[in-house]
Amino acid sequence: MELELQLAVERLHAQYAHALDADQLEDWPNFFTENGRYRIATAENEERGLPLPVLYCEGRGMMRDRIQSLRHANIYEPQRYRHIVSAVLVEKISAREARSSANFLVIRIMQDGATVVFASGRFVDRIALPEMKYDERVVICDSRRFDTLLAIPL
Amino acid sequence: MELELQLAVERLHAQYAHALDADQLEDWPNFFTENGRYRIATAENEERGLPLPVLYCEGRGMMRDRIQSLRHANIYEPQRYRHIVSAVLVEKISAREARSSANFLVIRIMQDGATVVFASGRFVDRIALPEMKYDERVVICDSRRFDTLLAIPL
Amino acid sequence: MELELQLAVERLHAQYAHALDADQLEDWPNFFTENGRYRIATAENEERGLPLPVLYCEGRGMMRDRIQSLRHANIYEPQRYRHIVSAVLVEKISAREARSSANFLVIRIMQDGATVVFASGRFVDRIALPEMKYDERVVICDSRRFDTLLAIPL
Repeated sequence: MELELQLAVERLHAQYAHALDADQLEDWPNFFTENGRYRIATAENEERGLPLPVLYCEGRGMMRDRIQSLRHANIYEPQRYRHIVSAVLVEKISAREARSSANFLVIRIMQDGATVVFASGRFVDRIALPEMKYDERVVICDSRRFDTLLAIPL
Repeated sequence: MELELQLAVERLHAQYAHALDADQLEDWPNFFTENGRYRIATAENEERGLPLPVLYCEGRGMMRDRIQSLRHANIYEPQRYRHIVSAVLVEKISAREARSSANFLVIRIMQDGATVVFASGRFVDRIALPEMKYDERVVICDSRRFDTLLAIPL
Repeated sequence: MELELQLAVERLHAQYAHALDADQLEDWPNFFTENGRYRIATAENEERGLPLPVLYCEGRGMMRDRIQSLRHANIYEPQRYRHIVSAVLVEKISAREARSSANFLVIRIMQDGATVVFASGRFVDRIALPEMKYDERVVICDSRRFDTLLAIPL
């Protein structure tokens, strides 16, 4: 049972990563429960208890709006992302909820081929069971330095 | 059963990564079926349907030739690679075949110690069951920029 | 059984990574057996059989001393680390011991937000069963180039 939950959570994280890396942003809200929350924060602000997320969405509707805005305001240089997810810890809280903490690395590839480490940090998640959707996903970035491209979900 | 297949595929990917990183290139063809195919492509060309692989091998014989050429034409600066494989999705197609998609990152370490992100992308695989060998491994690189070192399998 | 051991070892590696990344260095010795050994080496020296570890600790006591020294001599620029662990191979040697080989990548994030690949390499471990603690952890770094910050465990 525990093994199954571990692998199911890793599979969820993997599908999420592949969707974003394939630029299937319209699928992104579907990884969350109807009222799911998504937040990007910096490690520094999290530790200080400062409620200053870089990005905050509550509910799939708000997420869909976000993606639509992104698509219309597509003024960015074309680019690709590649997510590496590692060290996935899973804990079953109840029949309805699991929690997970995982390390991530996001690589950004610009159109000219230049490849850089774009972001690193932790995914801290509450996962609804048995639906296997994020009830909350907090992306805690190690670096305090962000450029505007962070408007794209990590 | 499903758990076993997931872990068996992850183990195959891990053994492949360790073999390349240990410069055991002569073992590389043994990860494939006798007529297995190996291809390195760019994401851009794959999306456009352009049949222009950076590297293409069909069958173990051709792979062995490739490695032999590499060994004889070893004009490169000595270097190491380190493969990071993540977000491994596995799907069982039949009793004879599984498919897998995984993210990868390859780090290159030059002789002076300089460390860079060399390549990122996806492994898209057809795996022969129950042999657990690649019937096809397509390496889809995010970047369009390659240097000649890509002659070494990823 | 084999699946359980695989996931238990991956969990151990994950907890170790999260502890270091969260700067919980005082917990670090607890991942080892009482007489456990920890060693950081370069791939080059390992291959040449040179017994010149960058860092060597034998036993939890020595590890605790090491951490205490680090805390008192904290003259470094504040920084964060992020461990990515991948391609985890596990082999059961006996009822009392498992061995594991895994690839790693450590990202360093400086206070100004700059993010670099700090180290890459392999963890080569002997794990005591059923305690699931490291009896030996050898960190084999790909690069020969280290700065003094390597005084911090990887």
